[in-house]
Amino acid sequence: MTDLEIAQAATLNPITKIAAKIGLDEDSIDQYGKYKAKINSVNMGKKLPDNHKLVLVTSINPTPAGEGKSTVLVGLGDALTKLNHKTIIAMREPSMGPVMGMKGGATGGGYSQVVPMEDINLHFTGDIHALTSANNTLAALIDNYILHDNQLDLDPRRIIWKRVLDINDRALRQTITGMGGISQGIVRETGFEITAASELMAVLCLATDLADLKIRISKIVVGYTTDKQPVTVGQLHFEDAITILLKEALKPNLVQTLAHTPTIIHGGPFANIAHGCNSVIATKTALQLADYTVTEAGFGADLGAEKFLDIKRPILGKTPDAIVVVATVRALKYNGGQSLDQLKNEDLAALQTGFANLQRHLDNMNRYGIPLVVSINHFVSDTSAELELLKNYCETQGITAVITDSWAQGGNGTTDLARAVVTATDQPANFKPLYDNQASIAEKIEQIVTNIYGGKEVTFSKKAIRQMKQFTAFGWDNLPICIAKTQYSFSDDPHLLGAPKDFTLHIREFIPKMGAGFIVALAGNILTMPGLPKKPAALNMHIDADGKVTGLF
Amino acid sequence: MTDLEIAQAATLNPITKIAAKIGLDEDSIDQYGKYKAKINSVNMGKKLPDNHKLVLVTSINPTPAGEGKSTVLVGLGDALTKLNHKTIIAMREPSMGPVMGMKGGATGGGYSQVVPMEDINLHFTGDIHALTSANNTLAALIDNYILHDNQLDLDPRRIIWKRVLDINDRALRQTITGMGGISQGIVRETGFEITAASELMAVLCLATDLADLKIRISKIVVGYTTDKQPVTVGQLHFEDAITILLKEALKPNLVQTLAHTPTIIHGGPFANIAHGCNSVIATKTALQLADYTVTEAGFGADLGAEKFLDIKRPILGKTPDAIVVVATVRALKYNGGQSLDQLKNEDLAALQTGFANLQRHLDNMNRYGIPLVVSINHFVSDTSAELELLKNYCETQGITAVITDSWAQGGNGTTDLARAVVTATDQPANFKPLYDNQASIAEKIEQIVTNIYGGKEVTFSKKAIRQMKQFTAFGWDNLPICIAKTQYSFSDDPHLLGAPKDFTLHIREFIPKMGAGFIVALAGNILTMPGLPKKPAALNMHIDADGKVTGLF
Repeated sequence: MTDLEIAQAATLNPITKIAAKIGLDEDSIDQYGKYKAKINSVNMGKKLPDNHKLVLVTSINPTPAGEGKSTVLVGLGDALTKLNHKTIIAMREPSMGPVMGMKGGATGGGYSQVVPMEDINLHFTGDIHALTSANNTLAALIDNYILHDNQLDLDPRRIIWKRVLDINDRALRQTITGMGGISQGIVRETGFEITAASELMAVLCLATDLADLKIRISKIVVGYTTDKQPVTVGQLHFEDAITILLKEALKPNLVQTLAHTPTIIHGGPFANIAHGCNSVIATKTALQLADYTVTEAGFGADLGAEKFLDIKRPILGKTPDAIVVVATVRALKYNGGQSLDQLKNEDLAALQTGFANLQRHLDNMNRYGIPLVVSINHFVSDTSAELELLKNYCETQGITAVITDSWAQGGNGTTDLARAVVTATDQPANFKPLYDNQASIAEKIEQIVTNIYGGKEVTFSKKAIRQMKQFTAFGWDNLPICIAKTQYSFSDDPHLLGAPKDFTLHIREFIPKMGAGFIVALAGNILTMPGLPKKPAALNMHIDADGKVTGLF
Repeated sequence: MTDLEIAQAATLNPITKIAAKIGLDEDSIDQYGKYKAKINSVNMGKKLPDNHKLVLVTSINPTPAGEGKSTVLVGLGDALTKLNHKTIIAMREPSMGPVMGMKGGATGGGYSQVVPMEDINLHFTGDIHALTSANNTLAALIDNYILHDNQLDLDPRRIIWKRVLDINDRALRQTITGMGGISQGIVRETGFEITAASELMAVLCLATDLADLKIRISKIVVGYTTDKQPVTVGQLHFEDAITILLKEALKPNLVQTLAHTPTIIHGGPFANIAHGCNSVIATKTALQLADYTVTEAGFGADLGAEKFLDIKRPILGKTPDAIVVVATVRALKYNGGQSLDQLKNEDLAALQTGFANLQRHLDNMNRYGIPLVVSINHFVSDTSAELELLKNYCETQGITAVITDSWAQGGNGTTDLARAVVTATDQPANFKPLYDNQASIAEKIEQIVTNIYGGKEVTFSKKAIRQMKQFTAFGWDNLPICIAKTQYSFSDDPHLLGAPKDFTLHIREFIPKMGAGFIVALAGNILTMPGLPKKPAALNMHIDADGKVTGLF
């Protein structure tokens, strides 16, 4: 059975019943159909309960097909629930761009899925559409301001605010707008990003409440004057209209797993081109309502987990009590040099070589001082010898490692992991941040590159050097750094697998995200607008006259 | 009190209670919050009950501020309900572009409003966002097809499928996409329209069920080969993916008036640049569930009503039993030559001159053979002498005319209109269509221009003449015509007010809408992507820390 078939065959509980499980009555939620809801009235300002545990699920560097991190996350949530721990899963919202492009959803898989999966993977409750329209309304207001007013002398060539769509559309990466003569506005070069990469997505994910959302929006830098001074949304007085467009999107969404574990899905920045974590509001809401909150950060621990710990954690005000690193035999062999089309075949040597990738991620997470557990996520093609070798490796290193089979067995395949996680969260943690925000931009990037990526040094383009000077002059240097780079390697080269050393990471450009409160550093060829493949997943999809969908995943 | 303040002060009934009024139980709807729902299970295919009445509300040529057609519609629905007629109001969904641009919503006004008005005017249940993303997913798939495959030899210069946003953004009217080198695709000139003007919006509004939706989508012509042969969505095999993206949007939305009259709001094409009617599915649903369905068509009767009767009616399979023509003293004086800033002052001469505009609309509607009522929609600035003069004029012409005050008095200000409408619907109707679809494209346009607009003749650009030949060769000539022109005049010149004669209407271009099943004829300078004014309405909006919005309308 496909993921979609399993999801369609499931019996869901009414969302009111799921809400009641975590103490939310009908007035505390807004239903979106029978199986989705927005959570209305959580006391966001309240101090988080001290004894409620937070577990972060991350992974090694993945193969292009992914290592089932979300599947393990869902299985772990279900298993904790079965062990009678009041648990909420907190995840990111899937982007529709990849759904139409590459086969594969973002709601777990097999018997560890969040449902209703079709809805969640398509329009869901409209949060991403609200972000798209808010983003593009702001863009239209900016172009209109330049045409009609422009008292601030905003330079059309220096506008950095791009339009967005939740679509993989390479043709929109670089565009010219305003063509057609005087009444069409001002001709300028610009482009579109995918909504998941937008600053508004990061703002929504990092805002602590509606007032904070408006403040963050007003701080967004949209461009520069001809005198090269930054211009913010607040200076243009657009922050209220944009906040109004996001007021419902700010509310976290409640759904359920196939086993009816309450799951909050809210905010969906990618971890390669953005900060990769679900919203602070969602995680806080979960922490207030559940004894165990299990959450994930996108792609490998070099991207998502690093950004969770250095960008999201300070705003969340809560450090994970344990970290689960998902490793697969497949991805370790891939990192050890086995080619993609051979991954189904046993290769103990490649596996052994690939351990270096796992080890660096473990060292990195250890560096933060948080207890660790490795989840060896079982795939059908794994051989016993391979699984044994991997488990032994972890034990030799003194790391708890548990084989999980959440895809085929749901929570039953993750019970041992859940027990290990409970034990880990009871261990003392001693969190040590990676860098001090007061350090310079270059120093912070060097910390990430040398301590997390394992690289030798960082180089900066002339533009990036000029930007660091400017940003420092503007007082923007005391912010965390969000590196945009490939998810396939510790380096900025997607082909440099395993645990590369002595490489140089090149920063070609910075983008100030003053609303989000971080500086994006672009490394390598990473694009903020994906493209579609030759055979897009859209071609496999079918719908019959009764609305039954097949071929979605 | 502003419209927003009145709406915010209202006490709404739970949408489940509104649904129950019209025989829909909780399983027949999907709640979207407490006061909105999508209607799931109506027997779309069923024959419409013979004795259920349909009333179409239209108007004279409006002033830029509008004549309160929606306000009269809502008041009429409330008044019919008070007279114990089981009534449903069927309206269009507002577009967010104008909301952010010009002050003024599209959910009625004063005490004749549909609520929750903030939600309806902003993202509502996401239908328009679904259309935007479906439209742009199709655009991305087309560009991707050309880049990777293009076995059909689709000519990049001849792609007519544009991208859309639900935003007033003049800078996107004409764009160049695909810049940045080989890996970005193919550089080409294209542009964006507002979603309300998109073919998918028309397709959603004219589809009779999900199967018909998919068939219509597959018929959409996206461009031409280098041999100038049309290429459809069906030939590219994208119809299933696009239909999947619209499957929820196809379900009509249920809300309520301030007086709790059930109101179905679904589909929102503009009437100047599109066909201007809410969805066939919504109107059918209302007709099945209520004794009286009251609905509207956008702008003046030359645009919305003509398109309702010639485009929507044949698919709906039901002719209105009565037509209400909304007239205001203001708009008649405007049509009679009084300047906009003087409309608050009495001017009986201008009013008298303006009667010609009303008279032509009445003659036009009479031509269709449907019983008529004039609603004289009262504005505070109207003098007794003006109202008297207008009422006498109608009586002299043998037309029932009722003064309505739905803005200030809600349904109580529309009771007499409701009684007159009930009487009118009991009169025998003898519908005569304006044109035969079997006539040529030019002949159909001549019918509209000479019989409805009152013009002398139609001229065609060289391009339009070439297109008529092509379309006829493709077998596309036997479709109804959707003229895109200004709403301010019977002609294609917005400054030619009143009842102009002897003018020539110039058709500059045709756009085939084979999915919608009509041919758009562009007249005058009408734009399919509006712009923002110098002081956009967005600047007046405010939101406080508790989410309370002010300044929206």
